Amino acid sequence: MTYCVAVKLKAGMVFLSDSRTNAGLDQISTFRKMIVYEKPGDRFMCLLSAGNLSISQSIREILQVEQLKDPEGGEPITIWNARSMFDAARVLGSAVRHVYQRDGEALKRSGVEFNVSMIFGGQIAGEGMRLFQIYSPGNFIEATPETPFFQIGESKYGKPVLDRVITPETPLDEAAKCVLISMDSTLKSNLSVGLPLDMAVYQADSLRSDRIVCIDHSNPYFRMLHDTWGQRLREVFDSIEHPAWDGRPTDAPLMVGSQRHAPLKKITSPQEKLI
Amino acid sequence: MTYCVAVKLKAGMVFLSDSRTNAGLDQISTFRKMIVYEKPGDRFMCLLSAGNLSISQSIREILQVEQLKDPEGGEPITIWNARSMFDAARVLGSAVRHVYQRDGEALKRSGVEFNVSMIFGGQIAGEGMRLFQIYSPGNFIEATPETPFFQIGESKYGKPVLDRVITPETPLDEAAKCVLISMDSTLKSNLSVGLPLDMAVYQADSLRSDRIVCIDHSNPYFRMLHDTWGQRLREVFDSIEHPAWDGRPTDAPLMVGSQRHAPLKKITSPQEKLI
Repeated sequence: MTYCVAVKLKAGMVFLSDSRTNAGLDQISTFRKMIVYEKPGDRFMCLLSAGNLSISQSIREILQVEQLKDPEGGEPITIWNARSMFDAARVLGSAVRHVYQRDGEALKRSGVEFNVSMIFGGQIAGEGMRLFQIYSPGNFIEATPETPFFQIGESKYGKPVLDRVITPETPLDEAAKCVLISMDSTLKSNLSVGLPLDMAVYQADSLRSDRIVCIDHSNPYFRMLHDTWGQRLREVFDSIEHPAWDGRPTDAPLMVGSQRHAPLKKITSPQEKLI
Repeated sequence: MTYCVAVKLKAGMVFLSDSRTNAGLDQISTFRKMIVYEKPGDRFMCLLSAGNLSISQSIREILQVEQLKDPEGGEPITIWNARSMFDAARVLGSAVRHVYQRDGEALKRSGVEFNVSMIFGGQIAGEGMRLFQIYSPGNFIEATPETPFFQIGESKYGKPVLDRVITPETPLDEAAKCVLISMDSTLKSNLSVGLPLDMAVYQADSLRSDRIVCIDHSNPYFRMLHDTWGQRLREVFDSIEHPAWDGRPTDAPLMVGSQRHAPLKKITSPQEKLI
Protein backbone atom coordinates (compact mmCIF):
# COMPACT_ATOMS: atom_id res chain seq x y z
CA MET A 1 0.00 0.00 0.00
CA THR A 2 0.95 3.65 -0.02
CA TYR A 3 -0.09 6.91 1.51
CA CYS A 4 0.54 10.20 -0.25
CA VAL A 5 -0.97 13.60 0.47
CA ALA A 6 -0.56 17.04 -1.08
CA VAL A 7 -1.97 20.37 0.03
CA LYS A 8 -2.36 23.61 -1.89
CA LEU A 9 -2.48 26.76 0.23
CA LYS A 10 -2.26 30.45 -0.49
CA ALA A 11 1.24 30.36 1.02
CA GLY A 12 2.46 27.40 -1.02
CA MET A 13 2.20 23.64 -1.32
CA VAL A 14 3.17 20.64 0.77
CA PHE A 15 3.78 17.13 -0.59
CA LEU A 16 4.32 14.02 1.53
CA SER A 17 4.74 10.35 0.62
CA ASP A 18 5.63 7.14 2.41
CA SER A 19 7.86 4.53 0.77
CA ARG A 20 6.41 1.09 1.49
CA THR A 21 5.42 -1.14 -1.39
CA ASN A 22 3.94 -4.56 -0.93
CA ALA A 23 2.93 -7.42 -3.17
CA GLY A 24 1.16 -9.42 -0.52
CA LEU A 25 2.21 -9.28 3.11
CA ASP A 26 5.29 -11.39 2.53
CA GLN A 27 6.87 -9.16 -0.07
CA ILE A 28 7.50 -5.72 1.32
CA SER A 29 10.02 -3.30 -0.12
CA THR A 30 11.02 0.33 -0.02
CA PHE A 31 10.33 2.40 -3.11
CA ARG A 32 10.16 6.15 -3.04
CA LYS A 33 6.96 7.55 -4.48
CA MET A 34 7.82 11.22 -4.87
CA ILE A 35 9.62 12.78 -7.76
CA VAL A 36 10.51 16.47 -8.01
CA TYR A 37 11.02 18.23 -11.35
CA GLU A 38 12.65 21.62 -11.09
CA LYS A 39 14.01 24.22 -13.49
CA PRO A 40 14.78 26.99 -11.00
CA GLY A 41 13.02 30.24 -11.83
CA ASP A 42 10.89 28.53 -14.51
CA ARG A 43 9.01 25.60 -12.96
CA PHE A 44 8.69 23.43 -9.88
CA MET A 45 6.59 20.26 -10.13
CA CYS A 46 6.11 17.35 -7.76
CA LEU A 47 4.63 13.96 -8.63
CA LEU A 48 3.35 11.42 -6.05
CA SER A 49 2.21 7.96 -7.12
CA ALA A 50 0.20 5.05 -5.69
CA GLY A 51 -1.03 1.79 -7.14
CA ASN A 52 0.78 -0.84 -9.18
CA LEU A 53 4.51 -0.05 -8.98
CA SER A 54 5.35 -1.38 -12.45
CA ILE A 55 2.77 1.01 -13.89
CA SER A 56 3.84 4.06 -11.91
CA GLN A 57 7.54 3.49 -12.60
CA SER A 58 6.81 3.15 -16.33
CA ILE A 59 4.77 6.35 -16.28
CA ARG A 60 7.60 8.22 -14.59
CA GLU A 61 10.07 6.95 -17.16
CA ILE A 62 7.84 7.77 -20.13
CA LEU A 63 6.90 11.16 -18.69
CA GLN A 64 10.45 12.34 -19.31
CA VAL A 65 9.98 12.01 -23.10
CA GLU A 66 6.17 12.23 -23.45
CA GLN A 67 5.01 14.85 -25.95
CA LEU A 68 1.63 16.31 -26.87
CA LYS A 69 1.01 17.92 -30.23
CA ASP A 70 0.70 21.70 -29.93
CA PRO A 71 -2.66 22.66 -31.53
CA GLU A 72 -1.10 25.90 -32.72
CA GLY A 73 1.61 24.02 -34.62
CA GLY A 74 4.49 24.94 -32.32
CA GLU A 75 6.98 22.71 -30.51
CA PRO A 76 5.45 19.53 -29.06
CA ILE A 77 4.39 20.07 -25.42
CA THR A 78 6.35 18.30 -22.69
CA ILE A 79 6.40 18.76 -18.92
CA TRP A 80 9.59 20.74 -19.43
CA ASN A 81 8.16 23.35 -21.79
CA ALA A 82 4.42 23.30 -20.94
CA ARG A 83 3.19 26.85 -20.36
CA SER A 84 0.66 25.78 -17.72
CA MET A 85 0.37 23.06 -15.08
CA PHE A 86 -2.87 22.05 -16.80
CA ASP A 87 -0.89 21.23 -19.95
CA ALA A 88 1.75 19.44 -17.87
CA ALA A 89 -1.05 17.36 -16.28
CA ARG A 90 -2.32 16.54 -19.80
CA VAL A 91 1.17 15.30 -20.71
CA LEU A 92 1.09 13.13 -17.58
CA GLY A 93 -2.37 11.79 -18.48
CA SER A 94 -1.02 10.95 -21.92
CA ALA A 95 1.93 9.07 -20.36
CA VAL A 96 -0.57 7.07 -18.26
CA ARG A 97 -2.44 6.14 -21.47
CA HIS A 98 0.75 5.09 -23.20
CA VAL A 99 1.52 2.65 -20.40
CA TYR A 100 -2.06 1.38 -20.60
CA GLN A 101 -1.70 0.79 -24.35
CA ARG A 102 1.53 -1.10 -23.76
CA ASP A 103 0.62 -3.14 -20.64
CA GLY A 104 -3.16 -2.92 -20.07
CA GLU A 105 -4.20 -5.94 -22.14
CA ALA A 106 -1.47 -8.24 -20.79
CA LEU A 107 -2.23 -7.21 -17.21
CA LYS A 108 -5.93 -7.93 -17.79
CA ARG A 109 -5.11 -11.43 -19.10
CA SER A 110 -3.30 -12.05 -15.82
CA GLY A 111 -6.24 -10.73 -13.81
CA VAL A 112 -4.33 -7.62 -12.72
CA GLU A 113 -6.23 -4.37 -12.78
CA PHE A 114 -4.61 -1.33 -14.41
CA ASN A 115 -4.46 0.50 -11.10
CA VAL A 116 -2.56 3.72 -10.62
CA SER A 117 -3.34 7.07 -9.04
CA MET A 118 -1.16 10.11 -8.88
CA ILE A 119 -1.00 13.58 -7.41
CA PHE A 120 0.77 16.17 -9.52
CA GLY A 121 1.22 19.78 -8.49
CA GLY A 122 3.48 22.76 -8.73
CA GLN A 123 3.91 26.04 -10.47
CA ILE A 124 5.11 27.24 -13.85
CA ALA A 125 6.30 30.83 -14.34
CA GLY A 126 3.41 32.99 -15.51
CA GLU A 127 0.59 31.29 -13.60
CA GLY A 128 -0.38 30.41 -10.04
CA MET A 129 0.22 27.10 -8.27
CA ARG A 130 -2.01 24.18 -9.30
CA LEU A 131 -2.64 20.75 -7.89
CA PHE A 132 -4.12 17.75 -9.74
CA GLN A 133 -5.16 14.19 -8.98
CA ILE A 134 -4.74 11.81 -11.92
CA TYR A 135 -6.71 8.57 -12.25
CA SER A 136 -5.97 5.27 -14.02
CA PRO A 137 -7.64 6.32 -17.30
CA GLY A 138 -5.38 9.39 -17.40
CA ASN A 139 -8.18 11.85 -16.58
CA PHE A 140 -7.69 14.28 -13.73
CA ILE A 141 -9.30 16.75 -11.33
CA GLU A 142 -7.90 19.94 -9.85
CA ALA A 143 -7.88 21.11 -6.23
CA THR A 144 -9.93 24.22 -5.43
CA PRO A 145 -10.16 26.41 -2.28
CA GLU A 146 -13.06 24.25 -1.02
CA THR A 147 -10.98 21.06 -1.41
CA PRO A 148 -7.39 22.16 -0.94
CA PHE A 149 -5.84 18.69 -0.50
CA PHE A 150 -5.68 15.35 -2.28
CA GLN A 151 -4.79 11.97 -0.82
CA ILE A 152 -4.01 8.72 -2.64
CA GLY A 153 -3.55 5.18 -1.34
CA GLU A 154 -4.50 4.48 2.28
CA SER A 155 -6.22 7.79 2.84
CA LYS A 156 -8.81 7.23 5.55
CA TYR A 157 -6.86 6.99 8.80
CA GLY A 158 -5.14 10.28 8.13
CA LYS A 159 -8.10 12.27 6.82
CA PRO A 160 -9.78 13.49 10.04
CA VAL A 161 -6.86 15.72 11.07
CA LEU A 162 -6.64 17.23 7.56
CA ASP A 163 -10.39 17.91 7.64
CA ARG A 164 -10.00 19.68 10.96
CA VAL A 165 -6.95 21.82 10.16
CA ILE A 166 -6.40 22.53 6.47
CA THR A 167 -7.89 25.60 4.80
CA PRO A 168 -6.35 27.72 2.03
CA GLU A 169 -5.24 30.19 4.75
CA THR A 170 -3.22 27.60 6.72
CA PRO A 171 0.44 28.71 6.97
CA LEU A 172 2.96 26.49 5.22
CA ASP A 173 4.73 25.18 8.33
CA GLU A 174 1.43 24.40 9.99
CA ALA A 175 0.37 22.41 6.93
CA ALA A 176 3.69 20.54 6.98
CA LYS A 177 3.05 19.63 10.63
CA CYS A 178 -0.51 18.61 9.79
CA VAL A 179 0.40 16.23 6.94
CA LEU A 180 3.06 14.65 9.16
CA ILE A 181 0.44 13.99 11.85
CA SER A 182 -1.87 12.62 9.16
CA MET A 183 0.94 10.28 8.10
CA ASP A 184 1.67 9.32 11.70
CA SER A 185 -1.95 8.17 12.23
CA THR A 186 -1.76 6.16 9.01
CA LEU A 187 1.56 4.51 9.93
CA LYS A 188 0.03 3.52 13.28
CA SER A 189 -3.00 1.82 11.75
CA ASN A 190 -1.74 0.31 8.48
CA LEU A 191 1.39 -1.83 8.42
CA SER A 192 1.65 -1.53 4.66
CA VAL A 193 2.47 2.18 4.94
CA GLY A 194 6.04 2.73 6.12
CA LEU A 195 9.03 4.99 6.65
CA PRO A 196 11.08 6.66 5.28
CA LEU A 197 8.92 9.57 4.20
CA ASP A 198 9.68 12.14 1.55
CA MET A 199 8.41 15.66 2.15
CA ALA A 200 8.64 18.67 -0.15
CA VAL A 201 7.49 22.13 0.88
CA TYR A 202 7.08 24.75 -1.84
CA GLN A 203 6.71 28.46 -1.16
CA ALA A 204 4.34 30.27 -3.55
CA ASP A 205 6.05 31.94 -6.54
CA SER A 206 9.52 30.73 -5.59
CA LEU A 207 9.75 28.38 -8.61
CA ARG A 208 12.26 26.24 -6.71
CA SER A 209 12.43 24.48 -3.36
CA ASP A 210 15.19 23.58 -0.95
CA ARG A 211 12.74 22.25 1.61
CA ILE A 212 12.91 18.64 0.52
CA VAL A 213 13.60 16.17 3.27
CA CYS A 214 13.69 12.42 3.79
CA ILE A 215 12.35 11.40 7.20
CA ASP A 216 13.21 8.07 8.78
CA HIS A 217 12.92 6.52 12.26
CA SER A 218 15.77 8.61 13.60
CA ASN A 219 14.39 11.99 12.49
CA PRO A 220 14.22 14.18 15.65
CA TYR A 221 11.25 16.27 14.51
CA PHE A 222 9.12 13.33 13.45
CA ARG A 223 9.90 11.47 16.69
CA MET A 224 8.98 14.53 18.74
CA LEU A 225 5.76 14.95 16.77
CA HIS A 226 4.82 11.28 17.15
CA ASP A 227 5.45 11.23 20.91
CA THR A 228 3.90 14.61 21.71
CA TRP A 229 0.79 14.08 19.59
CA GLY A 230 0.11 10.66 21.11
CA GLN A 231 0.66 11.88 24.66
CA ARG A 232 -1.35 15.13 24.40
CA LEU A 233 -4.19 13.42 22.56
CA ARG A 234 -4.39 11.13 25.53
CA GLU A 235 -4.40 14.10 27.93
CA VAL A 236 -7.24 15.72 25.98
CA PHE A 237 -9.13 12.45 26.05
CA ASP A 238 -8.69 12.23 29.81
CA SER A 239 -9.74 15.85 30.31
CA ILE A 240 -13.19 15.33 28.79
CA GLU A 241 -15.98 14.39 31.19
CA HIS A 242 -17.13 10.74 31.19
CA PRO A 243 -20.77 10.10 30.39
CA ALA A 244 -22.96 10.32 33.49
CA TRP A 245 -25.33 7.34 33.70
CA ASP A 246 -26.25 7.54 37.31
CA GLY A 247 -28.10 10.84 37.43
CA ARG A 248 -25.17 12.72 38.98
CA PRO A 249 -25.43 16.43 38.17
CA THR A 250 -23.84 17.37 34.85
CA ASP A 251 -24.16 20.06 32.22
CA ALA A 252 -24.04 17.45 29.49
CA PRO A 253 -26.30 14.50 30.33
CA LEU A 254 -26.18 11.47 28.05
CA MET A 255 -29.62 10.12 28.87
CA VAL A 256 -32.33 12.61 28.04
CA GLY A 257 -36.03 12.10 27.67
CA SER A 258 -36.81 14.63 25.00
CA GLN A 259 -35.27 13.08 21.91
CA ARG A 260 -37.02 12.32 18.66
CA HIS A 261 -35.93 8.68 18.64
CA ALA A 262 -36.84 6.34 21.47
CA PRO A 263 -34.17 4.12 23.02
CA LEU A 264 -34.04 0.62 21.57
CA LYS A 265 -36.65 -1.80 22.76
CA LYS A 266 -35.02 -4.93 24.19
CA ILE A 267 -36.02 -8.32 22.82
CA THR A 268 -36.78 -10.57 25.78
CA SER A 269 -38.10 -13.81 24.30
CA PRO A 270 -38.19 -15.81 21.04
CA GLN A 271 -41.87 -14.91 20.58
CA GLU A 272 -41.29 -11.19 20.64
CA LYS A 273 -41.70 -9.18 17.43
CA LEU A 274 -38.60 -7.25 16.35
CA ILE A 275 -40.42 -4.20 14.98
CA MET B 1 -22.73 2.59 4.77
CA THR B 2 -22.59 1.88 8.49
CA TYR B 3 -20.23 2.14 11.37
CA CYS B 4 -20.51 -0.18 14.35
CA VAL B 5 -17.98 -0.84 17.08
CA ALA B 6 -17.93 -3.06 20.16
CA VAL B 7 -15.37 -3.32 22.92
CA LYS B 8 -14.79 -6.06 25.48
CA LEU B 9 -13.10 -4.96 28.69
CA LYS B 10 -12.53 -6.54 32.07
CA ALA B 11 -15.17 -4.15 33.43
CA GLY B 12 -17.78 -4.92 30.80
CA MET B 13 -18.69 -4.27 27.17
CA VAL B 14 -19.65 -1.27 25.08
CA PHE B 15 -21.63 -1.42 21.82
CA LEU B 16 -22.24 1.51 19.48
CA SER B 17 -23.92 1.75 16.08
CA ASP B 18 -24.98 4.50 13.70
CA SER B 19 -28.25 4.32 11.81
CA ARG B 20 -27.65 5.48 8.25
CA THR B 21 -28.39 3.12 5.37
CA ASN B 22 -27.83 4.04 1.78
CA ALA B 23 -28.49 2.43 -1.57
CA GLY B 24 -26.52 4.93 -3.59
CA LEU B 25 -26.16 8.54 -2.53
CA ASP B 26 -29.72 9.41 -3.53
CA GLN B 27 -31.41 6.87 -1.32
CA ILE B 28 -30.55 7.42 2.31
CA SER B 29 -32.67 6.15 5.17
CA THR B 30 -32.53 5.59 8.89
CA PHE B 31 -32.41 1.97 10.07
CA ARG B 32 -31.20 1.02 13.49
CA LYS B 33 -28.46 -1.60 13.43
CA MET B 34 -28.36 -2.68 17.05
CA ILE B 35 -30.57 -5.27 18.66
CA VAL B 36 -30.43 -6.23 22.33
CA TYR B 37 -31.56 -9.65 23.58
CA GLU B 38 -31.99 -9.86 27.33
CA LYS B 39 -33.34 -12.38 29.80
CA PRO B 40 -32.40 -10.59 33.05
CA GLY B 41 -30.24 -12.74 35.31
CA ASP B 42 -29.73 -15.33 32.55
CA ARG B 43 -28.32 -13.64 29.44
CA PHE B 44 -27.53 -10.30 27.82
CA MET B 45 -26.62 -10.27 24.12
CA CYS B 46 -26.16 -7.45 21.66
CA LEU B 47 -26.05 -7.77 17.87
CA LEU B 48 -24.72 -5.09 15.50
CA SER B 49 -25.00 -5.46 11.74
CA ALA B 50 -23.51 -3.94 8.59
CA GLY B 51 -23.79 -4.76 4.92
CA ASN B 52 -26.85 -5.42 2.78
CA LEU B 53 -29.90 -4.42 4.83
CA SER B 54 -32.23 -7.03 3.32
CA ILE B 55 -29.77 -9.71 4.41
CA SER B 56 -29.21 -8.40 7.93
CA GLN B 57 -32.93 -7.87 8.55
CA SER B 58 -33.66 -11.42 7.39
CA ILE B 59 -30.92 -12.77 9.64
CA ARG B 60 -32.36 -10.92 12.62
CA GLU B 61 -35.83 -12.29 11.90
CA ILE B 62 -34.63 -15.86 11.40
CA LEU B 63 -32.37 -15.69 14.45
CA GLN B 64 -35.45 -15.58 16.67
CA VAL B 65 -36.41 -19.11 15.58
CA GLU B 66 -33.08 -20.55 14.40
CA GLN B 67 -32.17 -23.88 16.01
CA LEU B 68 -29.07 -26.06 16.04
CA LYS B 69 -29.22 -29.77 16.77
CA ASP B 70 -27.82 -30.58 20.21
CA PRO B 71 -25.09 -33.23 19.68
CA GLU B 72 -26.03 -34.77 23.03
CA GLY B 73 -29.63 -35.27 21.91
CA GLY B 74 -31.16 -32.61 24.12
CA GLU B 75 -33.39 -29.65 23.21
CA PRO B 76 -32.39 -27.89 19.99
CA ILE B 77 -30.03 -24.96 20.71
CA THR B 78 -31.32 -21.42 20.21
CA ILE B 79 -29.91 -18.05 21.25
CA TRP B 80 -32.41 -18.19 24.10
CA ASN B 81 -31.25 -21.45 25.64
CA ALA B 82 -27.59 -21.68 24.46
CA ARG B 83 -25.31 -22.43 27.40
CA SER B 84 -22.43 -20.40 25.95
CA MET B 85 -22.00 -17.34 23.76
CA PHE B 86 -19.97 -19.56 21.44
CA ASP B 87 -23.06 -21.71 20.83
CA ALA B 88 -25.19 -18.56 20.45
CA ALA B 89 -22.70 -17.32 17.81
CA ARG B 90 -23.00 -20.70 16.04
CA VAL B 91 -26.78 -20.23 15.95
CA LEU B 92 -26.23 -16.79 14.43
CA GLY B 93 -23.81 -18.24 11.85
CA SER B 94 -26.44 -20.82 10.97
CA ALA B 95 -29.06 -18.06 10.51
CA VAL B 96 -26.63 -16.28 8.14
CA ARG B 97 -26.31 -19.50 6.12
CA HIS B 98 -30.08 -19.94 5.98
CA VAL B 99 -30.46 -16.51 4.43
CA TYR B 100 -27.65 -17.33 2.00
CA GLN B 101 -29.44 -20.53 0.94
CA ARG B 102 -32.65 -18.60 0.43
CA ASP B 103 -31.31 -15.42 -1.28
CA GLY B 104 -27.67 -16.00 -2.29
CA GLU B 105 -28.28 -17.40 -5.77
CA ALA B 106 -30.88 -14.79 -6.73
CA LEU B 107 -28.66 -11.96 -5.45
CA LYS B 108 -25.76 -13.34 -7.50
CA ARG B 109 -27.90 -13.40 -10.64
CA SER B 110 -28.56 -9.69 -10.07
CA GLY B 111 -24.86 -9.02 -9.55
CA VAL B 112 -25.34 -8.31 -5.83
CA GLU B 113 -22.77 -9.75 -3.49
CA PHE B 114 -23.96 -11.61 -0.39
CA ASN B 115 -22.45 -9.01 1.88
CA VAL B 116 -23.12 -8.89 5.60
CA SER B 117 -20.95 -8.54 8.69
CA MET B 118 -22.01 -8.59 12.27
CA ILE B 119 -20.70 -8.11 15.78
CA PHE B 120 -22.31 -10.26 18.45
CA GLY B 121 -21.36 -10.12 22.09
CA GLY B 122 -22.66 -10.52 25.58
CA GLN B 123 -22.76 -12.88 28.50
CA ILE B 124 -24.68 -16.00 29.46
CA ALA B 125 -24.92 -17.06 33.12
CA GLY B 126 -22.14 -19.52 33.92
CA GLU B 127 -19.42 -18.08 31.69
CA GLY B 128 -17.56 -14.83 31.10
CA MET B 129 -18.38 -12.16 28.54
CA ARG B 130 -17.55 -12.95 24.92
CA LEU B 131 -17.43 -10.90 21.75
CA PHE B 132 -17.56 -12.24 18.18
CA GLN B 133 -17.34 -10.88 14.66
CA ILE B 134 -19.38 -12.84 12.12
CA TYR B 135 -18.62 -12.85 8.38
CA SER B 136 -20.80 -13.39 5.32
CA PRO B 137 -20.15 -17.15 5.17
CA GLY B 138 -21.39 -17.44 8.78
CA ASN B 139 -17.91 -18.11 10.20
CA PHE B 140 -16.70 -15.99 13.09
CA ILE B 141 -13.74 -14.88 15.20
CA GLU B 142 -13.61 -13.97 18.87
CA ALA B 143 -12.05 -10.93 20.55
CA THR B 144 -9.08 -11.58 22.85
CA PRO B 145 -7.17 -9.34 25.29
CA GLU B 146 -4.73 -8.40 22.51
CA THR B 147 -7.59 -7.35 20.22
CA PRO B 148 -10.36 -6.20 22.54
CA PHE B 149 -12.54 -4.45 19.96
CA PHE B 150 -14.24 -5.14 16.64
CA GLN B 151 -15.44 -2.67 14.05
CA ILE B 152 -17.67 -3.27 11.03
CA GLY B 153 -18.61 -1.00 8.13
CA GLU B 154 -16.69 2.25 7.73
CA SER B 155 -14.04 1.42 10.28
CA LYS B 156 -10.92 3.34 9.30
CA TYR B 157 -11.61 6.95 10.26
CA GLY B 158 -12.48 5.93 13.80
CA LYS B 159 -9.73 3.38 14.41
CA PRO B 160 -6.76 5.58 15.46
CA VAL B 161 -8.41 6.74 18.71
CA LEU B 162 -9.42 3.17 19.62
CA ASP B 163 -5.84 2.01 18.97
CA ARG B 164 -4.55 4.72 21.28
CA VAL B 165 -6.97 4.27 24.18
CA ILE B 166 -8.55 0.82 24.43
CA THR B 167 -6.95 -1.97 26.48
CA PRO B 168 -8.73 -4.64 28.52
CA GLU B 169 -8.11 -2.48 31.63
CA THR B 170 -9.92 0.59 30.24
CA PRO B 171 -12.81 1.56 32.57
CA LEU B 172 -16.28 1.21 31.12
CA ASP B 173 -17.15 4.93 31.03
CA GLU B 174 -13.84 5.75 29.44
CA ALA B 175 -14.50 3.16 26.73
CA ALA B 176 -17.97 4.64 26.15
CA LYS B 177 -16.38 8.05 25.70
CA CYS B 178 -13.75 6.56 23.37
CA VAL B 179 -16.21 4.81 21.03
CA LEU B 180 -18.26 8.03 20.85
CA ILE B 181 -15.15 9.95 19.76
CA SER B 182 -14.39 7.19 17.26
CA MET B 183 -17.93 7.61 15.89
CA ASP B 184 -17.60 11.40 15.85
CA SER B 185 -14.49 11.19 13.61
CA THR B 186 -16.33 8.80 11.31
CA LEU B 187 -19.43 11.00 11.09
CA LYS B 188 -17.20 13.94 10.18
CA SER B 189 -15.47 12.13 7.30
CA ASN B 190 -18.14 9.85 5.81
CA LEU B 191 -21.55 11.23 4.91
CA SER B 192 -23.02 7.74 4.69
CA VAL B 193 -22.64 7.27 8.45
CA GLY B 194 -25.27 9.21 10.38
CA LEU B 195 -27.14 9.93 13.59
CA PRO B 196 -29.00 8.80 15.62
CA LEU B 197 -26.64 6.43 17.38
CA ASP B 198 -27.53 3.50 19.60
CA MET B 199 -25.22 2.78 22.50
CA ALA B 200 -25.42 -0.08 24.99
CA VAL B 201 -23.07 -0.36 27.95
CA TYR B 202 -22.94 -3.69 29.80
CA GLN B 203 -21.35 -4.15 33.22
CA ALA B 204 -19.55 -7.50 33.68
CA ASP B 205 -21.67 -10.21 35.31
CA SER B 206 -24.80 -8.06 35.57
CA LEU B 207 -26.70 -10.16 32.97
CA ARG B 208 -28.86 -7.12 32.17
CA SER B 209 -28.32 -3.54 31.15
CA ASP B 210 -30.20 -0.31 31.67
CA ARG B 211 -27.49 1.73 30.02
CA ILE B 212 -29.02 1.74 26.56
CA VAL B 213 -29.34 5.11 24.97
CA CYS B 214 -30.28 6.62 21.62
CA ILE B 215 -28.17 9.66 20.76
CA ASP B 216 -29.30 12.23 18.23
CA HIS B 217 -28.27 15.77 17.27
CA SER B 218 -29.77 17.26 20.40
CA ASN B 219 -27.97 14.96 22.87
CA PRO B 220 -26.13 17.25 25.33
CA TYR B 221 -23.29 14.80 26.06
CA PHE B 222 -22.55 14.02 22.42
CA ARG B 223 -22.64 17.71 21.50
CA MET B 224 -20.26 18.56 24.34
CA LEU B 225 -17.93 15.72 23.29
CA HIS B 226 -17.97 16.77 19.64
CA ASP B 227 -17.24 20.43 20.41
CA THR B 228 -14.65 19.84 23.12
CA TRP B 229 -12.75 17.15 21.22
CA GLY B 230 -12.55 19.27 18.07
CA GLN B 231 -11.47 22.39 19.95
CA ARG B 232 -8.86 20.73 22.21
CA LEU B 233 -7.43 18.69 19.34
CA ARG B 234 -6.86 21.98 17.62
CA GLU B 235 -5.19 23.39 20.75
CA VAL B 236 -2.88 20.39 20.94
CA PHE B 237 -2.07 20.79 17.26
CA ASP B 238 -1.21 24.45 17.81
CA SER B 239 0.90 23.66 20.88
CA ILE B 240 3.32 21.43 18.94
CA GLU B 241 6.38 23.13 17.49
CA HIS B 242 6.38 23.77 13.72
CA PRO B 243 9.19 22.20 11.72
CA ALA B 244 12.30 24.42 11.66
CA TRP B 245 13.65 24.73 8.12
CA ASP B 246 15.78 27.75 8.57
CA GLY B 247 18.38 26.49 10.98
CA ARG B 248 16.85 28.24 14.01
CA PRO B 249 17.82 26.44 17.21
CA THR B 250 15.50 23.56 18.12
CA ASP B 251 15.63 20.32 20.05
CA ALA B 252 13.86 18.53 17.23
CA PRO B 253 15.34 19.48 13.86
CA LEU B 254 13.61 18.19 10.74
CA MET B 255 16.60 18.40 8.44
CA VAL B 256 19.42 16.20 9.65
CA GLY B 257 22.48 14.96 7.82
CA SER B 258 22.94 11.62 9.50
CA GLN B 259 20.07 9.58 8.07
CA ARG B 260 20.31 6.31 6.22
CA HIS B 261 18.30 7.56 3.25
CA ALA B 262 19.44 10.55 1.21
CA PRO B 263 16.98 13.31 0.33
CA LEU B 264 15.39 12.94 -3.07
CA LYS B 265 17.46 13.98 -6.02
CA LYS B 266 15.63 16.57 -8.11
CA ILE B 267 15.12 15.94 -11.81
CA THR B 268 16.19 19.05 -13.65
CA SER B 269 15.98 18.21 -17.36
CA PRO B 270 14.38 15.71 -19.77
CA GLN B 271 17.76 14.04 -20.30
CA GLU B 272 18.28 13.26 -16.64
CA LYS B 273 18.09 9.64 -15.46
CA LEU B 274 15.48 8.97 -12.76
CA ILE B 275 17.47 6.39 -10.81
